[in-house]
Amino acid sequence: MIAPPSSSVAAAAAERLAALATPPGALGRLGDLAVWLAATQGTVPPPALDNVRLVIFAGDHGVARHGVSAYPPEITAAMVRTFVSGRAGVSALAAAHDVSVRVLDLGVDDDLDGVPDDVRRHKVRRGSGAIHLEDALTPDETDRALAVGAAVAREEIAGGAQLLLSGDMGIGNTTPAAALVAAGLGLPAPEVTGRGTGVADDALAHKQAVVQRALDRAGGRLGDPVDCLTALASADLAASTGYLLEAARQGVPVLLDGLMAVACGLTADRIEPGAAAWFAAGHRSTEPAQSLALAKLGLEPVLDLGMRLGEGSGAVAAVPVLRSAVALLRDVALLSELLPPDAHA
Amino acid sequence: MIAPPSSSVAAAAAERLAALATPPGALGRLGDLAVWLAATQGTVPPPALDNVRLVIFAGDHGVARHGVSAYPPEITAAMVRTFVSGRAGVSALAAAHDVSVRVLDLGVDDDLDGVPDDVRRHKVRRGSGAIHLEDALTPDETDRALAVGAAVAREEIAGGAQLLLSGDMGIGNTTPAAALVAAGLGLPAPEVTGRGTGVADDALAHKQAVVQRALDRAGGRLGDPVDCLTALASADLAASTGYLLEAARQGVPVLLDGLMAVACGLTADRIEPGAAAWFAAGHRSTEPAQSLALAKLGLEPVLDLGMRLGEGSGAVAAVPVLRSAVALLRDVALLSELLPPDAHA
Repeated sequence: MIAPPSSSVAAAAAERLAALATPPGALGRLGDLAVWLAATQGTVPPPALDNVRLVIFAGDHGVARHGVSAYPPEITAAMVRTFVSGRAGVSALAAAHDVSVRVLDLGVDDDLDGVPDDVRRHKVRRGSGAIHLEDALTPDETDRALAVGAAVAREEIAGGAQLLLSGDMGIGNTTPAAALVAAGLGLPAPEVTGRGTGVADDALAHKQAVVQRALDRAGGRLGDPVDCLTALASADLAASTGYLLEAARQGVPVLLDGLMAVACGLTADRIEPGAAAWFAAGHRSTEPAQSLALAKLGLEPVLDLGMRLGEGSGAVAAVPVLRSAVALLRDVALLSELLPPDAHA
Repeated sequence: MIAPPSSSVAAAAAERLAALATPPGALGRLGDLAVWLAATQGTVPPPALDNVRLVIFAGDHGVARHGVSAYPPEITAAMVRTFVSGRAGVSALAAAHDVSVRVLDLGVDDDLDGVPDDVRRHKVRRGSGAIHLEDALTPDETDRALAVGAAVAREEIAGGAQLLLSGDMGIGNTTPAAALVAAGLGLPAPEVTGRGTGVADDALAHKQAVVQRALDRAGGRLGDPVDCLTALASADLAASTGYLLEAARQGVPVLLDGLMAVACGLTADRIEPGAAAWFAAGHRSTEPAQSLALAKLGLEPVLDLGMRLGEGSGAVAAVPVLRSAVALLRDVALLSELLPPDAHA
């Protein structure tokens, strides 16, 4: 059981919120977010969120060669290069909102020649198994990927991270992520399977069948979240799970992105219950499994803009909303400061 | 009829959006906003939104002494002083998101001694009429307030504004704003009247009756939007309407805030149809009239955070989302840039 953010700091933050020169409740969810952020930072008011860090975990998925995606697997490696060059969608958002971006190859099915070693040195394997036919990982690979994610979280925290974000890049990744959510919630494939980057109706039916075959193949292992990573996930998703879990253990808050981040957040909370108290939801993606998992975790997204880009982009877009929440609790006058001196008598 | 943003620039922006190295539609509403912003700025890609300006129009409302608000009218002048000192809710948000704030007294029922002349010199009257008993303004006052708003918009545009926001401060202001929406949409008082800053059930029923009496009193004038300002609004709301209208005439986009801004935006679009093509909606407030007016104008809010602070705060909180949209259209690689050279052959 992971200890939640400080309830005494949360109480002090709620007290300050109520004392602001604003009508009760007028800040809506920004008030709730401000209290949560204060509790996670351990101080009232919380510091401005100047050090926000995104780590993108990249990897290929064996299922991507089995008709579950509108894109060929080769795009994964091309997108890693695009992150490195700072020209991807999330790169533009992160630059606009002062969020640092780090991309790590956990399981890309490419040697990524010429890509910096910092990106490549965490590789666990080239491509993860096609989960409807075989396990995604060996148990040892799962452990290594979890450990990489945890180590990366510690590095980012040592660098001063006040808020951590995760992103995922890997053609086909919504298929294992949907399977993780199905396993975590005990749901059948049709309820969790969405269109990803945009498969048509017949491909969607096929994708559902692939997810269901993976679940059926995992069988008795569905009750163990680490076994689920081995059977159903991938190196990138296992590392992301380790990263989110370590953030919670270390008491650093996380702003979750779309389906992949939420599937990993759900899995982290299964591995160590209580982890989700350190998570907020950045945006509602178009994937049904994301909304189902968020509801299970008790999280309501900050943004709902119909985004389905992946890469951590929805979480980065939501960072300014969290900064709004902090600014209100930090910088708005207290009612007691505005009253004339004799009103204190 | 006000000319809409350039359709040819919008088409060029949509073409660039489709050429980005992102899956079709993956940016969701950020893609739509990027295209609209490009069209309003007249260039593809649009410039970064570095010059965003909020003007807060302040004024008192005679109805505030008739049981429609949870707060006493004296708060209006106190809040003007709080804006001047930079300690209000919207001040904190504007500082966090690099939005300039200007506050203008149009009709505060106080001399505002010691407040800078720049704030005070536009005053049209001290307090507007209690609209269930008398007209809010004389026709001449309405014209003067509209002219002040237009002049202020021109000043902000001359200062380089790429995006204009409006806010309103005045205890009781949701009552005239609800009446303006009722007039604009032809709806009875119960459908448009909300709780404002938080009146209880019995006060809500009374507030509905006040709105209905105002509408009945205005009678045949409900069909004329300028007459509606005279009969139902106030100096601050008339000035805000003039400001929004002038922004549209000058071809500068507006990000609307909550009920007051949307009521004025609706009225501006009634005065000169087509104005609303220059407006986007920053957030969904908790006031029913705001959602009704937005639906009429065909606008979907960017944020939905349960805010009801007023002051332009919801619009300021939404500015970073528009900056996200611009950043994506400006800075993401085109697919053609990522393909290897021989792919162009």
